[in-house]
Amino acid sequence: MRDVAVIGVGMNKWGELWNDSHRTIWTDAALKAIEDAGVDRVDSMYVGCMSGGLFVGQEHLGAMLADQLGMGPIPGTRVESACASGGLAFRLAYMEVASGMSDIVLASGVEKMTDVDGAAATYALSTAADQEYECFHGITFPGLYAMMARVHMSRYGTTQKQLAEVAAKNHANGSLNPNAQFPMKVTAEQVMNSPAVADPLRLLDCSPITDGAAAAILVPLDKVKEFTKNTPVRIAASAHATDTMALHDRGDIAAIESTARAAEKAYAQAGIGPKDLSFCEVHDCFTISEIMAIEALGLVEKGQGGAAAESGLTALSGKMPVNPSGGLKSKGHPVGATGVAQVYEIVNQLRGNSDKRQIKDAHWALAQNMGGTGASSLVHIFERLS
Amino acid sequence: MRDVAVIGVGMNKWGELWNDSHRTIWTDAALKAIEDAGVDRVDSMYVGCMSGGLFVGQEHLGAMLADQLGMGPIPGTRVESACASGGLAFRLAYMEVASGMSDIVLASGVEKMTDVDGAAATYALSTAADQEYECFHGITFPGLYAMMARVHMSRYGTTQKQLAEVAAKNHANGSLNPNAQFPMKVTAEQVMNSPAVADPLRLLDCSPITDGAAAAILVPLDKVKEFTKNTPVRIAASAHATDTMALHDRGDIAAIESTARAAEKAYAQAGIGPKDLSFCEVHDCFTISEIMAIEALGLVEKGQGGAAAESGLTALSGKMPVNPSGGLKSKGHPVGATGVAQVYEIVNQLRGNSDKRQIKDAHWALAQNMGGTGASSLVHIFERLS
Repeated sequence: MRDVAVIGVGMNKWGELWNDSHRTIWTDAALKAIEDAGVDRVDSMYVGCMSGGLFVGQEHLGAMLADQLGMGPIPGTRVESACASGGLAFRLAYMEVASGMSDIVLASGVEKMTDVDGAAATYALSTAADQEYECFHGITFPGLYAMMARVHMSRYGTTQKQLAEVAAKNHANGSLNPNAQFPMKVTAEQVMNSPAVADPLRLLDCSPITDGAAAAILVPLDKVKEFTKNTPVRIAASAHATDTMALHDRGDIAAIESTARAAEKAYAQAGIGPKDLSFCEVHDCFTISEIMAIEALGLVEKGQGGAAAESGLTALSGKMPVNPSGGLKSKGHPVGATGVAQVYEIVNQLRGNSDKRQIKDAHWALAQNMGGTGASSLVHIFERLS
Repeated sequence: MRDVAVIGVGMNKWGELWNDSHRTIWTDAALKAIEDAGVDRVDSMYVGCMSGGLFVGQEHLGAMLADQLGMGPIPGTRVESACASGGLAFRLAYMEVASGMSDIVLASGVEKMTDVDGAAATYALSTAADQEYECFHGITFPGLYAMMARVHMSRYGTTQKQLAEVAAKNHANGSLNPNAQFPMKVTAEQVMNSPAVADPLRLLDCSPITDGAAAAILVPLDKVKEFTKNTPVRIAASAHATDTMALHDRGDIAAIESTARAAEKAYAQAGIGPKDLSFCEVHDCFTISEIMAIEALGLVEKGQGGAAAESGLTALSGKMPVNPSGGLKSKGHPVGATGVAQVYEIVNQLRGNSDKRQIKDAHWALAQNMGGTGASSLVHIFERLS
């Protein structure tokens, strides 16, 4: 298999984009990535989207978006792994370039979530969990993560304030990100005093409903110079793992086992360990998710995730910055796009283009994107080349 | 890239499977393929499904079905290309094995379409077309294909009886297939006298709504003997192409350009031409679709597709048998599964296991699977090795 590099990335300002449609939001991000890469063609494209059917009444998204880009008859492939759909699209684009099948591949993700009302959006999101054994009995995602949080708190002494500190940190980072949906700063007190959604999770512990897209251009590493003068970013590892759909089938619901399994493979492929990373983008769909993710990635010991934001370890200026982009919490969470937007942040950071939230001398970075309550996880590791 | 072979296939009897759920239908087919291959593990799996969200309220299908199989943490990837979702899942499984990333990969497809009522199923299917520019204005799939048929009839003199002969042929083949949903024979007269759905298409010109699944096991060709004593079937070519989503954007709506483009690539990769094929499985979602498909594949000249079934050319005993399985028309059309079920038929035919519908000395075969009105097409070519 060939080494693969990312040479272009694009995304738009995320939010409630009522003047734009699913297809125009996506096309905007895709064209920005193509322009950033400086390529004049794409050989194949992937799009991650969780539920075009339930959110906008449109499936067949690979063909639709290849057409929208004016690039038919190129292959257009839509993939889905709930909130990890973007990470999965990125992995398949990586595989297509690595295999030698294609040279210039677009990886992208999109979700338009605000064209339906809140109840319909909650239903659509619930299709990421086990409908027959979980959701049909009444639970929704905040409830599932609340149960995971309760076990974490009871077993490891994680506190409500520690959850809130994750939100405060990510909003502080997001306040420096012009693409963030909610770029306001919040204090841990404001998070703890926000309305309860599913105890212990408060409104400000939850990521929002968002419209948005992101895209990246992948090429073989040894052909980078043919296409661009940008600093290339090498994909050092790509890993994908699954776990049971339903929480009741898991040995431990206070851990994200699929992330741990994917991370193990990814570190082995990259030949590095968690201590070598300059920073990470992780899947903070709820504040407890970031805590469990950094434990699964080995950034902290199991049970120590709660202290990480509180102690400043994961702050922008900390020893291991997590979610410099603002994360899903502040940047927004258009479910199909999130995994590719993590790559957008990482590529810009590794190029040194992240302005006020730039992490100094960043060299290795990791993206962790997960679906549902962690039934699927994608982990990618990136290296700056220069 | 490595050469890839199919060493196992599985499917169930298709129909209105009200005693089975989406997941059990899929698991049954997957286990049959695993048993047929004789393997004791799978390294990665793909599932094609058009709209888990709209048909059964379940997305996140890669993780769900890997779990259902008891094979987590293996990667589980769900892909979608409307009615070509199965063909696309097969292509990606091929790519993963060809790339060297994995050795034993499960390709599969599933759709459970009868848990919702007819109107909801029609809406779900309409998401394969351009919702904003076609379906929101009231047209559904029979209407779209009826327009294509009208142009074909007007330009090439294709007759209503020629359409009906396609259905009669496919039901004759399907009457020999124990897995077919509608294994009854029909005459061209019965087709022509069935109720009009969208003129010129009659009820018996249309494929049905179906529950069903199909699966296949792919391995590197040079490792076949480690796994199985079955006659291996080599994947000689895999191609994927797109076209505009909306009919009004096409130069010619009486042709399936995406199939023509994919076929061109596939013949080049396989190093053969249409004349070398022993038989084909094509996407006859409507009788006119088979006519346009065989033209796009170069089995007949453009405009001559109408005469093919009428003259006996494409009959089981003809010079170029098309849809020996009974096709979508008689076998059924669970949209996500169809592309993989074509592979099921081809592998059994090439192994000489097709009983009363066996095609003698079959050596090369082609599968053509398309999405929507042809906005996406997958073409695969297979060779018997022995």
